[in-house]
Amino acid sequence: MAETFLKNAWYCAGWRDDVGLGQKDLVERRIAGQSLLLYRTAEGALVAMEDRCPHRSAPLSLGRKEGDAVRCMYHGMLFGPDGICRAVPGMAQPPEGARVPAFATCEKDGWIWVWMGKPEDADESLICEAYSPYDPDLNLRANSIRIETNYRQEIANLADLSHISWVHDETFGGTDGWAFIKPRHKRQARGIETRYVVRDIPSPRFTAHMFPKEARFDIQVHVRLTVPCNFIMNFRIHEADGLESGDAQGALLLDTYTSQAVTPRDEGTLDYYFSWGTSTETEFPGVIDLMYRTNFDAFLEDKRILEGQRRRQLEYPDAPQIDIVHDAGPGQMLWVLDKLIAAENPA
Amino acid sequence: MAETFLKNAWYCAGWRDDVGLGQKDLVERRIAGQSLLLYRTAEGALVAMEDRCPHRSAPLSLGRKEGDAVRCMYHGMLFGPDGICRAVPGMAQPPEGARVPAFATCEKDGWIWVWMGKPEDADESLICEAYSPYDPDLNLRANSIRIETNYRQEIANLADLSHISWVHDETFGGTDGWAFIKPRHKRQARGIETRYVVRDIPSPRFTAHMFPKEARFDIQVHVRLTVPCNFIMNFRIHEADGLESGDAQGALLLDTYTSQAVTPRDEGTLDYYFSWGTSTETEFPGVIDLMYRTNFDAFLEDKRILEGQRRRQLEYPDAPQIDIVHDAGPGQMLWVLDKLIAAENPA
Amino acid sequence: MAETFLKNAWYCAGWRDDVGLGQKDLVERRIAGQSLLLYRTAEGALVAMEDRCPHRSAPLSLGRKEGDAVRCMYHGMLFGPDGICRAVPGMAQPPEGARVPAFATCEKDGWIWVWMGKPEDADESLICEAYSPYDPDLNLRANSIRIETNYRQEIANLADLSHISWVHDETFGGTDGWAFIKPRHKRQARGIETRYVVRDIPSPRFTAHMFPKEARFDIQVHVRLTVPCNFIMNFRIHEADGLESGDAQGALLLDTYTSQAVTPRDEGTLDYYFSWGTSTETEFPGVIDLMYRTNFDAFLEDKRILEGQRRRQLEYPDAPQIDIVHDAGPGQMLWVLDKLIAAENPA
Repeated sequence: MAETFLKNAWYCAGWRDDVGLGQKDLVERRIAGQSLLLYRTAEGALVAMEDRCPHRSAPLSLGRKEGDAVRCMYHGMLFGPDGICRAVPGMAQPPEGARVPAFATCEKDGWIWVWMGKPEDADESLICEAYSPYDPDLNLRANSIRIETNYRQEIANLADLSHISWVHDETFGGTDGWAFIKPRHKRQARGIETRYVVRDIPSPRFTAHMFPKEARFDIQVHVRLTVPCNFIMNFRIHEADGLESGDAQGALLLDTYTSQAVTPRDEGTLDYYFSWGTSTETEFPGVIDLMYRTNFDAFLEDKRILEGQRRRQLEYPDAPQIDIVHDAGPGQMLWVLDKLIAAENPA
Repeated sequence: MAETFLKNAWYCAGWRDDVGLGQKDLVERRIAGQSLLLYRTAEGALVAMEDRCPHRSAPLSLGRKEGDAVRCMYHGMLFGPDGICRAVPGMAQPPEGARVPAFATCEKDGWIWVWMGKPEDADESLICEAYSPYDPDLNLRANSIRIETNYRQEIANLADLSHISWVHDETFGGTDGWAFIKPRHKRQARGIETRYVVRDIPSPRFTAHMFPKEARFDIQVHVRLTVPCNFIMNFRIHEADGLESGDAQGALLLDTYTSQAVTPRDEGTLDYYFSWGTSTETEFPGVIDLMYRTNFDAFLEDKRILEGQRRRQLEYPDAPQIDIVHDAGPGQMLWVLDKLIAAENPA
Repeated sequence: MAETFLKNAWYCAGWRDDVGLGQKDLVERRIAGQSLLLYRTAEGALVAMEDRCPHRSAPLSLGRKEGDAVRCMYHGMLFGPDGICRAVPGMAQPPEGARVPAFATCEKDGWIWVWMGKPEDADESLICEAYSPYDPDLNLRANSIRIETNYRQEIANLADLSHISWVHDETFGGTDGWAFIKPRHKRQARGIETRYVVRDIPSPRFTAHMFPKEARFDIQVHVRLTVPCNFIMNFRIHEADGLESGDAQGALLLDTYTSQAVTPRDEGTLDYYFSWGTSTETEFPGVIDLMYRTNFDAFLEDKRILEGQRRRQLEYPDAPQIDIVHDAGPGQMLWVLDKLIAAENPA
């Protein structure tokens, strides 16, 4: 079978505060088909290793932190943050080869990233751009949900925002305007960048109660999508400017920032990390709460449609699919992903 | 693998009122290994199509009704009741081949039927006989349950009522009299017809409290079973006539009618639609309630034994089975079914 | 695939009182990949047979006891305690070959044992030693839990008590002393026997509150493990004697007896029967309750680590494993088991 996951890439494993300094903070993650243990040393350094003792496969996440090391609580083997076994109680020295595969980690912008390839290949220049949930100027509020689908479907979802008109009709949408945009996606080395304005539409549903019914708006979006699978977007609501093209010129009413990361667990499950906030410039009382609830609702909308899609794909594994104009973004993102996976796996 | 389901047949998808005119009335069904969407057009016409958008497999049942059409709420594709795509928002016209397989439907006797073969082959003369839950003269009360078994086991269950003595000992039974009947099954083109009298037995359990303990009864049954898998029965309780054979001659105490349909969802699951009632002629206050509760209890009895049987069949897939005298009905029904399936699938 | 379970062996199916004389006492068990019905005849004899009617596979445990026989409640077939069909209602005599495989059973020490090989090969001399939960001198209190793992992992768990230091740190343990024992296991025909003293350690956690903090103890253990997979242990807490070797000489503070049996249900599930108590000699008020609760907690500790291990083994089926000094006991037990399984299955 063809390889499914990109190895030489940074995957999101959550936010800075997800892995604390407490003795019980042995965090289990599953990323790209691997079970991982994450923890911090006493000095706060972030460690990631396979969550499996090489002796009899007990999860190290059921173990115990001891200084910068972790002890397997089945037979007491002690592993350093490099995964090398330091001690086996009852043996003068650990047996040869007693080590757990360790993974390179990096913390940047308040996000935790794990490199799923060989640690020596880890390239921090490839860490995706992200907004920090701890940035006081952005007021991001964050959460995560689990979705039972293959992550390629989630990439396709993110690479084509025409679905806002339909999936998110009751949250971000409220107009079919998104469905008539034919965005030009600028190809990047590891993703795509996309800018456009959705013009002369009613308010998005989540702010509709704040404006007169007949008011019209322009929404300017700037998306950067990077494999495997990070998404940041600047989403700005302007007063409609009446123009045909070009950047939105109307007054800026709400200037929002979202930073999202999709981490495949396995073939059929992913963890979705999301956040959304607004710059202090356009913030007003209560809007962060409103945005957070809207965002959460919207991800449940995505979950519903994606899991329904997954069920049908499993029921009809050989069904052909037809393509439409909105597949340009998904097609480019998956092409980039497949090219990188193929490059890692020469035949 | 041999084909499992008959395609050229009408399968029950519920009763008339299961699919309403409301905007949210997009009903999901699974029939013979296919996922279906059922809905009504504004004029009330019943539509059935594959519950899968041909673009990226999102369930259309998560969509939105628009007039006589249904819109996929992932990317907004609009499909007419014939399954042909009418519009893709953002495209001048739908791509070639954008259509959803549609299925022929029919409403008759208050039941909804779907033809799982090619719509052009749909033959309304093959719709099974059924009693209508809306017939004021029969007072049928209806419900459905899901049973985790293969539908062939349910056919075998229905084609041999000797199990009333055992499975339904506490509802329809209360005597081993059913086990001593050796009914002659009259072969039909697509099923069997069976008539007999179970003579000189105590009251069925569900009416036992109404009669003196020593009272004896004759029960005259007339069953018609049709592939795939419909069952109607006239079940009449008479005063015992003391005769050895022939139709029951004693006073008719309760004249009941049941109409049932088994719809396989997949190899291991089925939806069972059932109803039971009595003619106005022999109805008396409260008897419909009593019959409904008895019927529901009896189907839970069937569910328990059938699901237990299924578990053992999966555990012992290669175990031989021995046959007994009561297998005549099941054997004939499954023979009819297999012959029809084989005719559809020339080697 | 290689055979997984030993056939010619007695497996524990519970305790004497688990199978009563009531009419509803048709007890379902799953042992070594077989579904069994257990019941008692009117005279109290224990019967075990395949829990599957040879007609259409209905579970006999959903049936009805009639004297010393059991009736299948699907079509009324009646089976004697030897599994031979006595009657098929509606037939003059049962069809040839209508029988259910019967299994030899034995009750000894208050435990129920089932021989999973041919009944004629059943050898009562092979019944494992056990302490009786009904023995008034031992005050055993018993329970069982289900663990989702392969029984070989449970054997490995029991054959190496070094895990007390880690898995049971909060119950039986509280010291790493167990991890420094290198026990000599005396090989037996069907298992191993092991004796040693864990010396000069603090109190086990469950009795720590009863003694001064600085008190030191010796724990003398005597374990007998027998395939498939029975475990009895005499676990004695003594005052520390200050000696280097030999039997514990300090005052005997608590003299406990545990009798345990692991019954594999299938490849991935087992039923664990356990009991623990103390001799009347060293019993004191409340200690049985304390021991019972400690024991139950400890088995939940085992369950957590074993099920975690199982998950990782399924995720990484081809991962090599390294061995440590404590694998001697598990290695010998599994070697004995594999040798016996191989002897039953000549190539």
